[in-house]
Amino acid sequence: MSVDYHRMTTVDAQDFCASDGIVIVPIGATEQHGPHLPLGTDFTMAETVAQRAAQDVENVVVTPAIWTGYSPHHMEYTGTVSLRSETLMAMIRDVAESLWHHGFRRILFLNGHGGNMNLLGAAAQTLRFELDVRITVASYWSFASDAIANWRKSPLGGINHACEMETSLMLTSHGDQVKPEQATNTPITFANPYLSNDLLGSGAVATPWDFAEVTADGTLGHPELATAERGRELLEAVVRGLVGFLEDFKRWDWQNPQTIVGRNDAR
Amino acid sequence: MSVDYHRMTTVDAQDFCASDGIVIVPIGATEQHGPHLPLGTDFTMAETVAQRAAQDVENVVVTPAIWTGYSPHHMEYTGTVSLRSETLMAMIRDVAESLWHHGFRRILFLNGHGGNMNLLGAAAQTLRFELDVRITVASYWSFASDAIANWRKSPLGGINHACEMETSLMLTSHGDQVKPEQATNTPITFANPYLSNDLLGSGAVATPWDFAEVTADGTLGHPELATAERGRELLEAVVRGLVGFLEDFKRWDWQNPQTIVGRNDAR
Amino acid sequence: MSVDYHRMTTVDAQDFCASDGIVIVPIGATEQHGPHLPLGTDFTMAETVAQRAAQDVENVVVTPAIWTGYSPHHMEYTGTVSLRSETLMAMIRDVAESLWHHGFRRILFLNGHGGNMNLLGAAAQTLRFELDVRITVASYWSFASDAIANWRKSPLGGINHACEMETSLMLTSHGDQVKPEQATNTPITFANPYLSNDLLGSGAVATPWDFAEVTADGTLGHPELATAERGRELLEAVVRGLVGFLEDFKRWDWQNPQTIVGRNDAR
Amino acid sequence: MSVDYHRMTTVDAQDFCASDGIVIVPIGATEQHGPHLPLGTDFTMAETVAQRAAQDVENVVVTPAIWTGYSPHHMEYTGTVSLRSETLMAMIRDVAESLWHHGFRRILFLNGHGGNMNLLGAAAQTLRFELDVRITVASYWSFASDAIANWRKSPLGGINHACEMETSLMLTSHGDQVKPEQATNTPITFANPYLSNDLLGSGAVATPWDFAEVTADGTLGHPELATAERGRELLEAVVRGLVGFLEDFKRWDWQNPQTIVGRNDAR
Amino acid sequence: MSVDYHRMTTVDAQDFCASDGIVIVPIGATEQHGPHLPLGTDFTMAETVAQRAAQDVENVVVTPAIWTGYSPHHMEYTGTVSLRSETLMAMIRDVAESLWHHGFRRILFLNGHGGNMNLLGAAAQTLRFELDVRITVASYWSFASDAIANWRKSPLGGINHACEMETSLMLTSHGDQVKPEQATNTPITFANPYLSNDLLGSGAVATPWDFAEVTADGTLGHPELATAERGRELLEAVVRGLVGFLEDFKRWDWQNPQTIVGRNDAR
Amino acid sequence: MSVDYHRMTTVDAQDFCASDGIVIVPIGATEQHGPHLPLGTDFTMAETVAQRAAQDVENVVVTPAIWTGYSPHHMEYTGTVSLRSETLMAMIRDVAESLWHHGFRRILFLNGHGGNMNLLGAAAQTLRFELDVRITVASYWSFASDAIANWRKSPLGGINHACEMETSLMLTSHGDQVKPEQATNTPITFANPYLSNDLLGSGAVATPWDFAEVTADGTLGHPELATAERGRELLEAVVRGLVGFLEDFKRWDWQNPQTIVGRNDAR
Repeated sequence: MSVDYHRMTTVDAQDFCASDGIVIVPIGATEQHGPHLPLGTDFTMAETVAQRAAQDVENVVVTPAIWTGYSPHHMEYTGTVSLRSETLMAMIRDVAESLWHHGFRRILFLNGHGGNMNLLGAAAQTLRFELDVRITVASYWSFASDAIANWRKSPLGGINHACEMETSLMLTSHGDQVKPEQATNTPITFANPYLSNDLLGSGAVATPWDFAEVTADGTLGHPELATAERGRELLEAVVRGLVGFLEDFKRWDWQNPQTIVGRNDAR
Repeated sequence: MSVDYHRMTTVDAQDFCASDGIVIVPIGATEQHGPHLPLGTDFTMAETVAQRAAQDVENVVVTPAIWTGYSPHHMEYTGTVSLRSETLMAMIRDVAESLWHHGFRRILFLNGHGGNMNLLGAAAQTLRFELDVRITVASYWSFASDAIANWRKSPLGGINHACEMETSLMLTSHGDQVKPEQATNTPITFANPYLSNDLLGSGAVATPWDFAEVTADGTLGHPELATAERGRELLEAVVRGLVGFLEDFKRWDWQNPQTIVGRNDAR
Repeated sequence: MSVDYHRMTTVDAQDFCASDGIVIVPIGATEQHGPHLPLGTDFTMAETVAQRAAQDVENVVVTPAIWTGYSPHHMEYTGTVSLRSETLMAMIRDVAESLWHHGFRRILFLNGHGGNMNLLGAAAQTLRFELDVRITVASYWSFASDAIANWRKSPLGGINHACEMETSLMLTSHGDQVKPEQATNTPITFANPYLSNDLLGSGAVATPWDFAEVTADGTLGHPELATAERGRELLEAVVRGLVGFLEDFKRWDWQNPQTIVGRNDAR
Repeated sequence: MSVDYHRMTTVDAQDFCASDGIVIVPIGATEQHGPHLPLGTDFTMAETVAQRAAQDVENVVVTPAIWTGYSPHHMEYTGTVSLRSETLMAMIRDVAESLWHHGFRRILFLNGHGGNMNLLGAAAQTLRFELDVRITVASYWSFASDAIANWRKSPLGGINHACEMETSLMLTSHGDQVKPEQATNTPITFANPYLSNDLLGSGAVATPWDFAEVTADGTLGHPELATAERGRELLEAVVRGLVGFLEDFKRWDWQNPQTIVGRNDAR
Repeated sequence: MSVDYHRMTTVDAQDFCASDGIVIVPIGATEQHGPHLPLGTDFTMAETVAQRAAQDVENVVVTPAIWTGYSPHHMEYTGTVSLRSETLMAMIRDVAESLWHHGFRRILFLNGHGGNMNLLGAAAQTLRFELDVRITVASYWSFASDAIANWRKSPLGGINHACEMETSLMLTSHGDQVKPEQATNTPITFANPYLSNDLLGSGAVATPWDFAEVTADGTLGHPELATAERGRELLEAVVRGLVGFLEDFKRWDWQNPQTIVGRNDAR
Repeated sequence: MSVDYHRMTTVDAQDFCASDGIVIVPIGATEQHGPHLPLGTDFTMAETVAQRAAQDVENVVVTPAIWTGYSPHHMEYTGTVSLRSETLMAMIRDVAESLWHHGFRRILFLNGHGGNMNLLGAAAQTLRFELDVRITVASYWSFASDAIANWRKSPLGGINHACEMETSLMLTSHGDQVKPEQATNTPITFANPYLSNDLLGSGAVATPWDFAEVTADGTLGHPELATAERGRELLEAVVRGLVGFLEDFKRWDWQNPQTIVGRNDAR
């Protein structure tokens, strides 16, 4: 059954809105992902995760993906399409404000691109405090942080970009778009104790990099460890995590913050 | 065979760019289309036309559609997602500038929403004169204006929004998303000699309308005249027209304007 | 009798506002018009048409002209003064918003420069949907499209810029500013079936040109066919057309859209 | 002989530019000036002064006036047309940048509205330091400060808005637009030692006023002291002052600051 | 006793606000001041004057200084930190709007940098007319204009930048930051009758200068005349002047303009 | 010895720049910190940490603190001064761009306010990719994450705002500004497994809160566990951490990324 937002008529949308359902807006990027993954990897995975979870929870729809993100650090590689930071923030704002205007009250922006995170966070703040529009934002991998730690075979540095994780996920969901034989086995040379070099890493300091400065072919991590089978396992964990949140989200009432933050028993 | 831009790897994109191919960016809207057409009608049709033409011409790819347009005049109807004018212009600008940056020189924004046209035109001007980035812009129906005049059964006023034309096109290409039994047979009451009330109409004066002021259910025109068969006929005419332009476009050399405007023999 | 807005005192303006009269804001450009027409041609003609029509209809005033338009495509020619697109839109918005603020409800921006049209249209949309300010916009030649078709001697391509039409109009109204002996007899070489090359032409595709790319002396069209006598004839047709609209405009009631669009009998 | 910028053809403008002449851009406002002066007073006087001085100095042209200024403090009075501060700054910037682009190097914005001064100054700074475009700015009355002090009959408070000075100047140059019998004899009640209440006054502190807070009919000052004869005398002093500057301005060479600031002998 | 705004808790701030006290926001610049004065001179002096006056008047607090101003004309000298004009205006606006939001109604921005003045004035206008937030603005030296005229030893040109006045004031209040032996005895060569060259000078025309064009070491004026003793004398005059205004300011009621401007008896 | 940036003359700054030293820009907020901590807590602590570390490492200077941050979520509490997001980003950009312009190549923005982090990160990206200006950003507590985990007495939820950590740090460094007797012993009720409620917590989802929705007196955490002695211990850990980074930072060469990220041996 379709969970596509854009297949509804305005009458369907009115009904859906009345039912107080959830709208997920997938957001990613169109940017280089090494010689083995397609340009669309980030929005494709956000969309895939959203679609699967929406199938498993009642009253959830998914809009088309915002397929352009903040990717200036990949512009040296042909094919990358990047928005300026203010364009991306305006885009998020207008989509959220439109949805809120109609009465949708459960809006999740599901992100698939690390470079979007500062701006998604900032957009959520602007929406909340300038327009009184409330959204939630999350990157799909955050719903399975613990699972990823157990699942990975690579050391820190192996999960960064077009890496063990992304390649596995794409292999299982969009195998025809992957060229695993092109995946490189690059030794990880990104190493400074004050900077993070991995999805699960941490660093006291942040400074932006152009990928062309730190990798030859656009890969950071260990894509050669990826398999479709391992991807399937991880995708399930992520979807399960998101399903959990969607169930929780349905109980939120913005007018009564205690319904959201006050569940002491949950810890 | 896929003509999807986002399925290319960065290496594929480099090859495609070297071949001097055409990139089509479909752009539409997500907005009410009466009780019988889906919210996604405008971007879906732009995407459909682009995909079909790209299949018929060598060396053409199609990006994902920009699914959000300028639709404040439809915000009274649930489901419409509208960008502010400056957001849409920034979006078009950033996508075009990214493509141009990599060396793509044949970029067509193919539009499916009337409300975008002023802004698309203005964005093209800004790109050309502020950034020296050159794009072409067109609405899909412009490739078949004469055909439409012959094809139509309705008088002026019958082809406007969620109308004879759009309903026919959606019936043939995405019939499962259409509810023809909901289509209304509204008498056309939009009539002032100074204002246009039809895709093929004209008027000396322009002034913006909120659809809620001039139509009850969001329809303007005669959707009840639509059939899938008539839609197939029209779609073919549109695609044929676009194919003609794409072949012409391949010969354009921006550095040598005579290759573009100087073909006296053609008239 | 003066119909100048700026000659009223604030007390006069209050009376005029109470009478529910029409305010015309002429808008044009200051840009090259070949070796034979003055830089001010576009705003001068908009102003002239507005002034003449205002003399013929009761209760109409005319503001000073906005003499700067969007003319980046003429900046290669000395003397052109161009606003950035956002400046022009802001200018239109602020003038309209000021007038609306005082209670003026019949505001027409009368345009004399083709390059302004996308932005004028976009500004009208922004005013309507962001500020609930309603304006009408029109280019002066739109009030006489049919007349122009009959009047012209040149084939398509002859009426474009500093052309048969503009030169005739300036000869009749501001002959002392015209140097007809400098007007060129340039063969029209602008010819691509997908692009428009004439005020009355059409084309499926749009792409912006720098005039310096397609004409040597800044002229596009056939100014050598112009005469003062023919200009007088055309100017009368334009003024008559505008007078017709002003009479219609007086009956509009924004709160009751049927007074505007619902006159079925008129077609 | 015409000194109008907009009457030149582009060829004339090229010649004028080559002669290294001066371009004056009059700038004012369209705003209430009490019951006795027209809305256009400020731009009309700036234009008048500019035209007269241009007649007396070789190689000077005058553009049409920027007739919209920064006048939010007059919006309570019908007829005022005010730009937002950023619109006015953008307007000044674009006009100056266009002129500079063509090679004009002696540009004077001649102001006739007090409310524009902060923004004109700020625009000049932005032009100089962001775009390397150099302009000079002045209010017309500054060329005759000493003369005004001698000429006035009113005490401090008498020359402020629609006052002894403006009314006299308009009486002499545009008497048909003045209704002297409407001019009020309002006692001056604006009196705080820390705030200025007169063109020639001073105050340590600034704070913006809405005119509706401090005057009933929009007048601040003593218009009843104005006569056409006294206006003629003052206008001559102002024009003489400006002529002096224009002669000086002709010797300026921006590449050699000593030609401008280094004339020790002059003091 | 501390008069520091930032040392209050939110509870203290609530009490202070209830008492209808004055908040002073010192604003200056961080920019070159020749070889003898520190980069922080401008904000340091604004802060010093504010702190001293606040000690002498009941119910006055002082925020930290805005230490960045508009200083593009000093960027050729190492160490200068300059905001763009729109950044500074946004900064002033947000600080003022925050204070007003809480109920503070007596807000003075006390300036120490000439280059900020146009923008401070414009920001005050924007606050007043776009947001209905009222502030007062003043440069510290304006509270002692007459005193300065009597106090100075230098002719016109001697008090401009890093000059007789600033050096004296810094010597008395922050002597450890001054290197008087580095102060130059530059002959004043800035001399054009139409341009001002001194804090107390005047000129009919304004045009922005880059300091690197008109002074070798960044000084304009006669710092060699400065002494700590003379600085003490001047600082006292300035503080006395500000104290006078603060007492007056306490009586202002924005809702009743007569309490502010209507004190006829005061003149 | 002073490490203050603003006490240098321009000549000193030139020398310092030539020595390739580090510039730290402390950035915080002025916002409510409960009834027991001053409004200036965030910028005061960033400044304090920066000053102490600068004393321990050669060739480091510290600018005045940016005392205004992004704090709309605290505006319900009197005294908070918040910038809009674009103002803060512009502020960071202009300060960094000014420093980079002079040749400073080691710039650290040291943050003391959680609400600034998205924007600081976004500003760093904009600076790097739009202006080619490189900065590093860090929050002071990130230099001691492990130490904090060991040091804390409270469970998760105890270190959030005006909490165990901030109160301890202020007690040791600015005890006279703290009113420990006002600190509340609020049970922690902020508990949803998908949202973080602690500096060391994590959550898959983010959504902005207005503090007034989730805490009565502005405190989130356990300030009653704070002591000056424990603050001293923690402050030392933080300063030690920052000193470590500053030594590392001195070896960075932006032109040679391997000097920064390529130290494999370090892991």
